[in-house]
Order: sequence, then C-alpha cells, then structure tokens
Amino acid sequence: MSALRITGTTITPVALKDPPLLNSSGVHEPFALRSIIEVHTDAGITGINEAYGDDATLDLLRRAAAVLPGVDVFDLNELSRRVSAAVTSVAASSPTELIGAASADKTVAQAVAAFEVACFDAQGRAVGRPVSDLLGGAVRDRVDFSAYLFYKWAQHPTAPDDPREFDVDPWGEALDPDGIVEQARRMVDRYGFGSLKLKGGVFPPDEEVEAVLALRRAFPDRPVRLDPNANWSVATSHRVAEALAGELEYLEDPTPGIPGMAEVAAKTDLPLATNMCVTGFAEIPEAVRLGAVQVILSDHHFWGGYRATQALAGLCQTFGLGLSMHSNTHLGVSLAAMVHLGAATPNLTYALDTHTPWKSESEDVVLGGGLTFTEGAVAVPAGPGLGVELDRDAVARLHEQYLTCGVRRRDDAGWMRRVRPEWTGKRPRF
Amino acid sequence: MSALRITGTTITPVALKDPPLLNSSGVHEPFALRSIIEVHTDAGITGINEAYGDDATLDLLRRAAAVLPGVDVFDLNELSRRVSAAVTSVAASSPTELIGAASADKTVAQAVAAFEVACFDAQGRAVGRPVSDLLGGAVRDRVDFSAYLFYKWAQHPTAPDDPREFDVDPWGEALDPDGIVEQARRMVDRYGFGSLKLKGGVFPPDEEVEAVLALRRAFPDRPVRLDPNANWSVATSHRVAEALAGELEYLEDPTPGIPGMAEVAAKTDLPLATNMCVTGFAEIPEAVRLGAVQVILSDHHFWGGYRATQALAGLCQTFGLGLSMHSNTHLGVSLAAMVHLGAATPNLTYALDTHTPWKSESEDVVLGGGLTFTEGAVAVPAGPGLGVELDRDAVARLHEQYLTCGVRRRDDAGWMRRVRPEWTGKRPRF
Repeated sequence: MSALRITGTTITPVALKDPPLLNSSGVHEPFALRSIIEVHTDAGITGINEAYGDDATLDLLRRAAAVLPGVDVFDLNELSRRVSAAVTSVAASSPTELIGAASADKTVAQAVAAFEVACFDAQGRAVGRPVSDLLGGAVRDRVDFSAYLFYKWAQHPTAPDDPREFDVDPWGEALDPDGIVEQARRMVDRYGFGSLKLKGGVFPPDEEVEAVLALRRAFPDRPVRLDPNANWSVATSHRVAEALAGELEYLEDPTPGIPGMAEVAAKTDLPLATNMCVTGFAEIPEAVRLGAVQVILSDHHFWGGYRATQALAGLCQTFGLGLSMHSNTHLGVSLAAMVHLGAATPNLTYALDTHTPWKSESEDVVLGGGLTFTEGAVAVPAGPGLGVELDRDAVARLHEQYLTCGVRRRDDAGWMRRVRPEWTGKRPRF
Repeated sequence: MSALRITGTTITPVALKDPPLLNSSGVHEPFALRSIIEVHTDAGITGINEAYGDDATLDLLRRAAAVLPGVDVFDLNELSRRVSAAVTSVAASSPTELIGAASADKTVAQAVAAFEVACFDAQGRAVGRPVSDLLGGAVRDRVDFSAYLFYKWAQHPTAPDDPREFDVDPWGEALDPDGIVEQARRMVDRYGFGSLKLKGGVFPPDEEVEAVLALRRAFPDRPVRLDPNANWSVATSHRVAEALAGELEYLEDPTPGIPGMAEVAAKTDLPLATNMCVTGFAEIPEAVRLGAVQVILSDHHFWGGYRATQALAGLCQTFGLGLSMHSNTHLGVSLAAMVHLGAATPNLTYALDTHTPWKSESEDVVLGGGLTFTEGAVAVPAGPGLGVELDRDAVARLHEQYLTCGVRRRDDAGWMRRVRPEWTGKRPRF
C-alpha cells in the first residue's frame, strides 16, 4: 500500500441534549458540546473520530487541522510532531475542570488525540481490520461498562432572564439514597451494568455515604465506586474513607491535588482512583513517588490518543497501578473508540465509565443509533476501523442544534448560578 | 483483510564466526549462535525474525512455537498470552549474563519477542508497509550507530585438548590505548560512525581510562561511552567516574545491581546507562526510586519485542530517562529489526550499539549481505515488513556451520579458561 495521505479534514461541532446532572462544579447545562472529526485521504478513505466541542477546543482543532494535509495516516509520529508545533503557542485550556487543571501538554494531547484516533480509523478501513487489531488485538470480545449514577434534578431550571422552559426528563429527580437506588435499578434493568458508580461531591458527605451503603444493600453483588470530584478536604476524605472501608471498588478523586491524595491514601486501604490529579504523563512521577493514587482513569481524549493511552497502560502495569477509563458526555463515535481501546488493553480490567445512558436515544451521530449494551457490555465492533459509520442526517441535526443552542463552552457553575447566585463551584466545599 | 493466521513456524539455528573479543565474562568463542525465525500464515505470507540461538533459547522458542498455529498475526495480545502460558514452567535462563540475571519474566519476554517481531514483518508484508509505519512512523530516515570497540586478541587460543588452530582475524590485536585508537580509526574509516563505545571491564580500570582519553584526543568530536559490564566495585566506579568526568557520553553498567549503581550515580554527573541491572519492567520501579540509572539500553530481543520496547520508551520519556539500544552479536535480520524500531522511537536519540563490524562480511542470512552503513547510519528499509529477505543458501550454510561448530551455549568464561584455567568471570573483579 502506498502512502495514504491526508488531503483535508472536516470538524463539525454538534450539541446533544443533556439532563441536569449534579456534580461538584454545579450542574450540567441543557446541551453538551462535542465535535465530529473527519480526516480525508487521497485514497478516498475517510477516518472519523469524536472530540470535545467547546470554542477553545474547536480553535485548537482547527489550528491542528491546518497542518495535517500531506501526513500519511500511518505516520502518527509526524502527526504528533506537526500538531505539537502548530498548537504550542495556544493558551492552555480545558473543556472542563473536572478532568483536572489545563496545561500546555494536555492541550497538545487533546489536539493530537482528536486526529490520531481518526487516523487509526482510516488505517483500519484501508487494511480491512478493526481498530482493536491495530492496537495489538482484542483480549476480550465485550467491554464492560459501569452504571454512572448522578444526583439530578427532574428538569433544568428556568431563570428570570431566560424564558426557556425545559422538559422533565425521563429519569426524573434523584436527590437522596432512595432516588439513587431507584435510578440504579432502572439503569441496571435497562443496560445490565454489573457495577455502579455514583457521582458525588454534591451533598454533605454523610448523605453520600448513606447513598453508597443503600446501593450496597440493594445490589450486594455489584462493586460500587464513588467520585466526589475533589470536593472534600483531606480530613473529610479520611472520615468518608473510614466510613466506607470495604464498601468501595475504589474511591475516586476525594480531594484535590497529588499531595492531598497521598495524605488520604496513607490512611486508607481503599484504592484511590483519579482523572483529576494525574491527567498527563508529567504528573506520574510525583504520584508514584508519593503513592498518591492506586488506579488511573485513562481517557484517550485527553491523554493524547490511543498510543499515548497504551503507554499509560504500560506505566500502570510497571508500577502496579490499576487502570480504568473515564468518560465525559459523549456520542457513539467516542463509545466505539473507547470499546476498541478497552478491548485491546489487557490490564484495563475495571468496567469503564460511560455517560451513554444520559444521552437521548434519539440523538446520536452514528448509523443505527450507536452500539448497544447487553449485560452492561458492548461487543467490540468487527467491521473495519472503529466499526461505526456517521449518520449524515443526524450529524446535520445535531450541528443545527449546536448553532441554535447558545452554549459555546461548558460552564456547570454558571448554570448552577441560575438558581443559586452565590455558587462558585470552588473546591473543596466539604 | 481477513485473519492472517499462523499455520506453522520454522526455527533454524545458525552459527556465525566471531572474533576473540574480550569482556568481563571472558572472551567471545569462535562461533556465536543465533536463530532465524519464520512464521508462516494461511495467506502464504511468511514473517521473519532473528533471535538467540543457544540450546536453552531454542527449547524455549520451540515450546512457544507449538502454541502459535491459529493465531492471527495482528493479534499480538493473543500471541503474548499463549506464549506466556506455554513457557511459564520453563526454567529461567539467559543467553548471556551480560544482559543481566535470568528471570521468569525475561524468559517469557524473549520468547514473545522472537515471534512478535516476525508477526510485525508478516503484517507489513500483508499491508505493503514497512514495519516502522506499523510502529507509528519513522521519525528519522537513517538510524545512527556507534563504533563498538573491543579489546581483543589477534586470534582465538588453541588448547591442549583441542587441536583446532584459528586464523588471525582481519582486525588483529588490540590490548592497549594505541590498539584501541587504531581499531577505532579503522572502524570509523570504514563505517563512518559518529560516536564510539569501548567495551571495558577487561583490564585494570586505569588502563581503560587511558584508552578512553586516547580516544577523546584522537576523535575530539565523537562522543565516547565506556562499558565495563559491572566489573567494578562501587569504590572503583567512583574513582573512574571522577577520572572521566566530562569525557563520556555515558558510563554503562560500572557496577553490579541497582543499589550499587545508585551509589555510583549519587557521586557523579556522568549519566549511568544499563543493560544489566534494568533489563525488565519489574526492575524499573526500584531503579526510578533510587535514581540508579539515567539511560536505559533497550533491546527488543529481551524486553519482549516491539510493543514492549515502545512501552519502555514511554516509561523513559515519563521519568526523564535517556533511551539507547543494546546489541549482542547478531546478523542482518536483527539489524533491520533494530533500525525500524530505532527509526520509529522519537526519544531514542543516542546512536545504537551494533556488533555488525565484528561479523564476517561473507556471513549473513539476508540477501545482498545485509543493510549497509553510510556515515555510521543505516537507512530505514522502504520495502514491506522488515525490508530484508532471507538468503536461503546463506541460511543453509550457517545452519551447517551450527551443526558442526560444537557450540551450543555461549560460554565466554569457559573459552577464557583455555588459556587462563583459574578464570571465573566473577564480577566485580576490579
């Protein structure tokens, strides 16, 4: 096969409806932003991917896209080199502080990832192989996901200066242990998830401890994780860790920063997981030295793509760290991308996070509405590349929604201020 | 492309002539052993590779080969899984103590590597791409090597119980600084190497310091490395490091073991390199914790193949360690394999080691006699796979030589005992 050179790219911002999910920053807005990436080649093959869709990311992706024509889709090192050079002067930004602080390295990593995965899709289409084959081969034919439970309101708030009224979503309200157990029951019944994750950091920690214990009683066979998104002090984290000793699969980001996490880790046997204090390679040495985390929640979207995440997997294996996978709100291309990577990573042995249940079933960008969950797992697509195809009409609809929705960057704190004007989202709150 | 399944393998042990090169273990024997690996597939494509050829390795490779039929050459995780299971009960062995102690992990890694690289060759042939493309793309079109200088005798010793007489080899004797400078001159003139490496640990350290300083005077523009193969005590290492401060690109394995290396590192600014105390992933955490080494000399033959060595590269990048490449005596398939990996590893920025100059030009297993050196570098082969083809007649000749040479495992100490019966090869000697 001769070179398969990039001739151009298409970046299409899209917006999908998002329920009022509560977290330590505030509350999800009515629309979440993503972008659909297409990498076109001189062989007529187009590789696809999905990335963040906020203004800063779009600017970043466009700068990166400008330098890609001529790059062979197999030459991922050249892609990385060109993208790094093109975006090195871009101010560091993060689509959400819930994946840790912005950094120059992470900004580059996000830009590389967006196009690298699309190049893998193009490679797979060119050679007639699923992407998991190009990542070393699937070690499992189904990838397990966990039920991602959120405290939530029944509907988005109205505000004096915004006359919009939002529908009550099908999931309704969940603001206490009973509501969370009910939500879990519905999600497990529908998707078959074998493990549960509660997004915490919303209510006073004792209430969240009660919710976890209620989940443990209701689902004694299902591991539970709790993620307060660094909204607790070290002292609070110690207290919660003690209250939940033996009850959690892992405790995710109880407190901000590597030194704080190390203090928490020193006094508990609960494994601490993170997608906030270790979100790039530069943070690994300190985390290892201090023993701050026991599980890293990978995410190819911000770790730099597939190859970078595989390097992360090697690091975790070498240092005896667990490896799991983080999720932001996403569509079906990202789900497929996560499944291939999850399938081809031998030491990714925890069920992955996904926001899929919170997405309207009528909103996706892939033909057929996206991959389906059976017993909490998604089968690895067997077709070439990522194994999913864009639904052009759906992309157009969600792009139109992007144009009219008014959201251009994620601002969970700002949305919360509609109902709580004093809200800052500053962490740790408890 | 449908699955490209392994139907069988061919493992051909070969022997090549080897000059009497001196090292801390003893002296190279008149023949060095390698094996040529062929992985046959149901598509008629055969992937090739080269591995060690001692009896223990051959036994290991045959046990691994037995479980490979049916494996898709893209499914490297399955290859690794099956090989690991098949050889897990094999007693740990090492083809030479010069690559560190034997371990169960390294034994598995060697077996995986032998077939994994052959699978990459088959993949490349199937998709019409050089292996470097499958490793992320060549970041350099030529890979630099260094001149590997050895103290040596003019000819192999005869012994009372062995009537063989060995020819004087073309390189002649090199037993003092003048001899080493003369050898370097010839090697640089012939291959154009831009850096120099002296295999030390042979003579009292002060003599080797003199040889290094003589090289520095004779080749002021060429970085020099010194590798005494762990034959010095910590105190001796301190003394030599002080004597050579500012004179070495790196000092390789001055003393045995990670704690000893850490003691040396603590008192010198010379970077310490290793292919003896960190030769597998299990050794990395301690080495990082103690700051024992600053450069890891990778070698896909014993680190577990291409993907494992790329994981090692990620570790080195993350922890700020340098990365270079080790060499044992080898033929042209290994040279090609090293070139592809070296080309596709961005942070492999040191010139690589190679024993190629010590190989008879008339002895190789690849058509055309092997890749050529220009200005010390080898151009990355552009053809599919590794880009080299087996010379069947040459393989047959070197296999015949294997059958008659009498060597079945490398034993530098035993060969030294022909002339110095009291020799043990025990380290550290100085």
